[in-house]
Amino acid sequence: MIRHPAYRIEPWRLTEDELDLDILAQSESLFALANGHIGWRGNLDEGEPHGLPGSYLNGVYESRPLPYAEAGYGYPEDGQTVINVTNGKIIRLMVDDHPFDLRYGELQRHTRVLDFQTGLLHRDVEWVSPGGRGIRVRSTRLVSLAQRSVAAICYEIEPLDTPVRLVVQSELVADEAMPQMSADPREAAVLDRPLQSEEHSHSERGAMLIHRTNVSGLQVAAAMEHVIDGPNAGGPGSVKVEAESSDDLGRVTVTATVAPGERLRIIKYVAYGWSSVRSLPAVRDQVAAAMTSATQSGWQGLVDAQRAYLDAFWDRADIEIDGDAEVQQAIRFAMFHTLQAASRAEERAIPAKGLTGTGYDGHAFWDTESYVLQMLTYTDPGAAAHALKWRHSILPQARQRAQQLGLDGAVFPWRTIAGAECSSYWPAGTAAFHVGADIADAVIRYLYVTGDETFAQDYGLELLAETARLWRSLGHHDADGQFRIDGVTGPDEYSAIADNNVYTNLMAQHNLQSAAEAAQRYPDVARRLAINDEERAAWRDAAAAMFIPYDEVLKVHPQAESFTTHKIWDFEGTTSEQYPLLLHFPYFELYRQQVVKQADLVLAMQMRPDAFTDEEKARNFAYYEALTVRDSSLSASSQLVLAAETGHLDLAYDYLGEVARMDLDDLEHNTRDGLHLASLAGVWIALVAGFSGLRQRSGVACFSPALPDDIARLAVRLTVRGAKLHLEITPKTTTYRLDDGLDVKALQIRHYDEAILLAPNEPVTRPTRRPAPLLKRPKQPRGREVKHRRKNGD
Amino acid sequence: MIRHPAYRIEPWRLTEDELDLDILAQSESLFALANGHIGWRGNLDEGEPHGLPGSYLNGVYESRPLPYAEAGYGYPEDGQTVINVTNGKIIRLMVDDHPFDLRYGELQRHTRVLDFQTGLLHRDVEWVSPGGRGIRVRSTRLVSLAQRSVAAICYEIEPLDTPVRLVVQSELVADEAMPQMSADPREAAVLDRPLQSEEHSHSERGAMLIHRTNVSGLQVAAAMEHVIDGPNAGGPGSVKVEAESSDDLGRVTVTATVAPGERLRIIKYVAYGWSSVRSLPAVRDQVAAAMTSATQSGWQGLVDAQRAYLDAFWDRADIEIDGDAEVQQAIRFAMFHTLQAASRAEERAIPAKGLTGTGYDGHAFWDTESYVLQMLTYTDPGAAAHALKWRHSILPQARQRAQQLGLDGAVFPWRTIAGAECSSYWPAGTAAFHVGADIADAVIRYLYVTGDETFAQDYGLELLAETARLWRSLGHHDADGQFRIDGVTGPDEYSAIADNNVYTNLMAQHNLQSAAEAAQRYPDVARRLAINDEERAAWRDAAAAMFIPYDEVLKVHPQAESFTTHKIWDFEGTTSEQYPLLLHFPYFELYRQQVVKQADLVLAMQMRPDAFTDEEKARNFAYYEALTVRDSSLSASSQLVLAAETGHLDLAYDYLGEVARMDLDDLEHNTRDGLHLASLAGVWIALVAGFSGLRQRSGVACFSPALPDDIARLAVRLTVRGAKLHLEITPKTTTYRLDDGLDVKALQIRHYDEAILLAPNEPVTRPTRRPAPLLKRPKQPRGREVKHRRKNGD
Repeated sequence: MIRHPAYRIEPWRLTEDELDLDILAQSESLFALANGHIGWRGNLDEGEPHGLPGSYLNGVYESRPLPYAEAGYGYPEDGQTVINVTNGKIIRLMVDDHPFDLRYGELQRHTRVLDFQTGLLHRDVEWVSPGGRGIRVRSTRLVSLAQRSVAAICYEIEPLDTPVRLVVQSELVADEAMPQMSADPREAAVLDRPLQSEEHSHSERGAMLIHRTNVSGLQVAAAMEHVIDGPNAGGPGSVKVEAESSDDLGRVTVTATVAPGERLRIIKYVAYGWSSVRSLPAVRDQVAAAMTSATQSGWQGLVDAQRAYLDAFWDRADIEIDGDAEVQQAIRFAMFHTLQAASRAEERAIPAKGLTGTGYDGHAFWDTESYVLQMLTYTDPGAAAHALKWRHSILPQARQRAQQLGLDGAVFPWRTIAGAECSSYWPAGTAAFHVGADIADAVIRYLYVTGDETFAQDYGLELLAETARLWRSLGHHDADGQFRIDGVTGPDEYSAIADNNVYTNLMAQHNLQSAAEAAQRYPDVARRLAINDEERAAWRDAAAAMFIPYDEVLKVHPQAESFTTHKIWDFEGTTSEQYPLLLHFPYFELYRQQVVKQADLVLAMQMRPDAFTDEEKARNFAYYEALTVRDSSLSASSQLVLAAETGHLDLAYDYLGEVARMDLDDLEHNTRDGLHLASLAGVWIALVAGFSGLRQRSGVACFSPALPDDIARLAVRLTVRGAKLHLEITPKTTTYRLDDGLDVKALQIRHYDEAILLAPNEPVTRPTRRPAPLLKRPKQPRGREVKHRRKNGD
Repeated sequence: MIRHPAYRIEPWRLTEDELDLDILAQSESLFALANGHIGWRGNLDEGEPHGLPGSYLNGVYESRPLPYAEAGYGYPEDGQTVINVTNGKIIRLMVDDHPFDLRYGELQRHTRVLDFQTGLLHRDVEWVSPGGRGIRVRSTRLVSLAQRSVAAICYEIEPLDTPVRLVVQSELVADEAMPQMSADPREAAVLDRPLQSEEHSHSERGAMLIHRTNVSGLQVAAAMEHVIDGPNAGGPGSVKVEAESSDDLGRVTVTATVAPGERLRIIKYVAYGWSSVRSLPAVRDQVAAAMTSATQSGWQGLVDAQRAYLDAFWDRADIEIDGDAEVQQAIRFAMFHTLQAASRAEERAIPAKGLTGTGYDGHAFWDTESYVLQMLTYTDPGAAAHALKWRHSILPQARQRAQQLGLDGAVFPWRTIAGAECSSYWPAGTAAFHVGADIADAVIRYLYVTGDETFAQDYGLELLAETARLWRSLGHHDADGQFRIDGVTGPDEYSAIADNNVYTNLMAQHNLQSAAEAAQRYPDVARRLAINDEERAAWRDAAAAMFIPYDEVLKVHPQAESFTTHKIWDFEGTTSEQYPLLLHFPYFELYRQQVVKQADLVLAMQMRPDAFTDEEKARNFAYYEALTVRDSSLSASSQLVLAAETGHLDLAYDYLGEVARMDLDDLEHNTRDGLHLASLAGVWIALVAGFSGLRQRSGVACFSPALPDDIARLAVRLTVRGAKLHLEITPKTTTYRLDDGLDVKALQIRHYDEAILLAPNEPVTRPTRRPAPLLKRPKQPRGREVKHRRKNGD
């Protein structure tokens, strides 16, 4: 829990007014900057104190052996772990005789501001050194969304009352010493000094370091250049600059004596590049080119481009919420960070923690497709396409994995950086085959929302077909002809290796159907992929015969076959200290009882709304609410969505507090390792799928808006079929408006059960409904009740 | 496969007439000597060449950390691995200038004989050194059954044609260099040099070494003494003896020049002791006392005692089989080794490989109770009692484990040496809770067969109660009142974490019932164990309501709930190179399909014959025969037993070949790591439970003898209620005879459905039946058909 005095509630910024060293690591995650390619944690410029120093390049990892006391066939032998690459953020400062270090001297004022409109991280500090010298330090940092290989810092120092002698050391540091985050000595052994020096150089005001990772053999280059502006700059003797470099250090030292009213200003440009295939000269040139581009743009050019990039994003994607300033801030915080994680990833994965920390080893999981891509598809469809193209790029590894496992098509890894399966615990890894259907679902969603035929033909059908092939080989028709998928693990990680998980079977059904349809639609591509009529028929048959278990006695869907016959977890006998359960109970006890870590059957109802009647949704939702402990940050947003759909808007609003503040309030106690991207995307899902009721059915965006009492207005901007779609929801009415100026003649949507053909700039207004729930408000397990949402923390 | 020219088929011995260095490790296992306390592999006296040097002390292990790439709550952190203790077998020989090493010079004659009647291992070799000196070396080795801390060797050398100068170095060697058996560097790191020297000393003709294991901290002592008899022994200058010792070596060197017709004879006595708690002086004295006892007995005394011990065993336990000499040899080989593994274990575990090798890390599993104790209870009941007392002795660890897992009573480890769970793969480890019921079943069997009331009160009831408590907390009554045990793993390791495994539920039912009955029978003990009426009632209720799933459509019992709805393994598409399947397919594929590694439902029918009708047995047997691939050496004996019971005597006879020759012919390709004790006990089970049809029901030994065509006569000796019971089965008649001279007035038995009260020395003869099978002979999976048994290899 961040016990910091709450961040200011502001619509477009996150502001910290006090520095609390105990939660430094959390704030480093919250104030992280990234563009999907480079990630810089919000470490202090001077490097120390730090929680977790972090500079990341998407895709740069080190391999490490995965140990097993008892190995088994098909267990992955090597894991991949994100590494802290060359730190280009560091600017150390000496004030007369004292290093600028907030642990000493007196910090008189401290502000950090992350601005979601400008994409800049500002810091403004007034500090008096132990020697009594007062200074003001301002830094502004950006990781460029416009130039993906570039980051920059504007660093300014002013004396407060007496002249000071300043020595600024701006550095590139490789193989920084890392704090011990894990007690596992094996892990530390590999991650200690992952970079081997290949080359280092320096020029008048710059330096470059090139390294290679030890085992994975990736080449990583970082360069810096500086523009220095000080008292009498350029004049004789006033500001002195020296540069040097060694294996793991590039350093530019600026010395100046600055009087009150004067200022020393240093612009630091940093460029990164890496490659697994290109030669050292090629990587060196790539970074030099990025640097040239950065310096030619100049600081103001980069700042302007950042603003323009974000203006365009907010123009097509902003969400306004009246009546809840906290949620207003949270949704923009969430969307800003999601954009940062994905926007320029460009055929690399979007990891679970983005590029904000080393949590989950930097791996990407299924929730990128099932959560993050929900938002991106409607707000930054190009980024969604790139994320799916990355999945397409790892098809060779996924096919090889399928072959190893004796299956057809592609088995996508449960967790990975570069495509190989890195999960060493197969019951909650390889057995969670639903990741394939989740990717297929993201493909289908992307095609629905964008109508991108080129993507469908070049990437989409192949992804659908290879995952459909997997399902066809994984399941079988039983004696009654039903298609069963036995012994797999669904989204809920408190169950494993069960037969006919409803979520998995419904998602596989959709996958098989869609693959068959897409193959019919693109016969030439189908031929290239060797999909024949027989195969399409087999997919259709399997989909049509898909077995969906149902408990006729309880009148609910079991999460998986037999689930509802299991013992119900002893919630009464479980203390609050025993959550999360996985840290206090063995897997087998969790697996064999009715206790749910995270939405599974509920997620099925969200993702396959067509597969359940309203009554089934109401009954199922009530049943699983009583079993779901939300030990995963993924859960609350899905529960919110179904609470809203089943008419429990007050419950949905209560969930909104949890969803919105997950990382801001560190509810899972691990924000220090990085932000939860899927949980952040969940804020968007909560508002859009929850309160506007957005679902995608057969290529049509369907809405069923309904607002809880405390929300006076919800305005949503979406991109659908290239058009900007505005929703303006109030308790009484909902107005749909299609932006003009776009090459879209009309857009088919649905408002509840009414089909509406929306023409540009011809808004349509309809009443907002508020359907009564069929059942009374469901309860969560004792001790895990969702908190009543007090608006704005009152 | 041992490609050695078949061992001679002899009723009482195993003879090797040729030395094949390629299968040295296998023969070292087959020729191993042990007494349950000390184990000596059949390594050559001179130490090299070797397959796997091995000297073991039951209970002596080293700890090693169990690595996990992803750890989980309740995963055991440390494993236990059997270690090679101080080698007391080594007697090196120098013949003039050449070491006696069979890889050099010329081996003119080689014989090794393991004698099941005398308990001696004889070796007789004629060898010509590279220098042209011919010698005959005879050694006789014993590990004393009468004096459990003692082993001894009689070593004799005679020149064949010219006088030779002989140097004999009789040694104790600690921390021998071991061949690399595993590719896992972590394992080797720990097991390399597990012993740290604590003390070493030597006397005129002896030496003692005391060591301590590094991590587990066990003190291990070994001593040797010699009696030397050579030409002109005692005369001046002819035979010289020197002794020395250092940290890891004790050496007595005997030098003599021996002429043809003369002989150098060395008797080597070796004594071992170890302790986890006693002081070094105490352990030193313990070994010295054992040595004194040995030397006072003298070689002939030890030989005589060994013979007497075995005479008594064979007198009460021998099995004669007419018509199949190969099986006759196999049963005595099997019983001899089972006796060696268990007889003097005395409150230590009986490991899966006995003390014959390092396979399975030296761990004991459930099959000790379910297989090995079947034989021991009827043939060496004292050893059976000791094995169960060992289980009783580890109750504290088992209770602690239950507590850790959130369960009541005791959770016995899946694999262990000293009591702690050492299984790092819980789906096939901790989840296989049936081990608790298997132990309870062995207790019930032991009490039935012996009527040992003292044991019942001091050990039995507590074991029954603590396992019953486990079942009561592991299962639950569902909405219909049925008692379900969900999410556990049965004996078949190609399934895991399934609901209501029939074997488990039936065994748990018996466990619960028996615990309730025993608590009623011994109210004082029950009070001490805090068993009250409510608890007994809960046990009885759970047993009475135990859910046993049944497939009404197929009319068979599913191995576990839903099993019969799973896909049937593609046996047609599986090549013979893909067996054992676990080395070529991932667990999840095995778990989710109908394919059976080893008897599970079939074992349930063997262990709970009362729970199935004859028709169910016939149908179930046929169904599971078609699914069972016998990738475990445990399987065939159970399949044999049910084949016999369902009237398929020809099939049972075919299985007999596989069962009888498992280790002798190295059918599992890992006899080099040690013998499969449970599989050896399986030979006894095959003959006794299979062809005499022995089952235990409510304290009565029930027989339903039936012989396959090729067996002309089967004579079985059993110990029941302290009485010797003889069976004489021919195809026509079966005669039951109770030995006289015992303090038993009469014994209740059953012959098929006839109750017989047997009085001492009043044999009863009844017709042997041969019931016709209800169904036609079942088939095994393609490629795994049981071989037609050709009698005596013709």
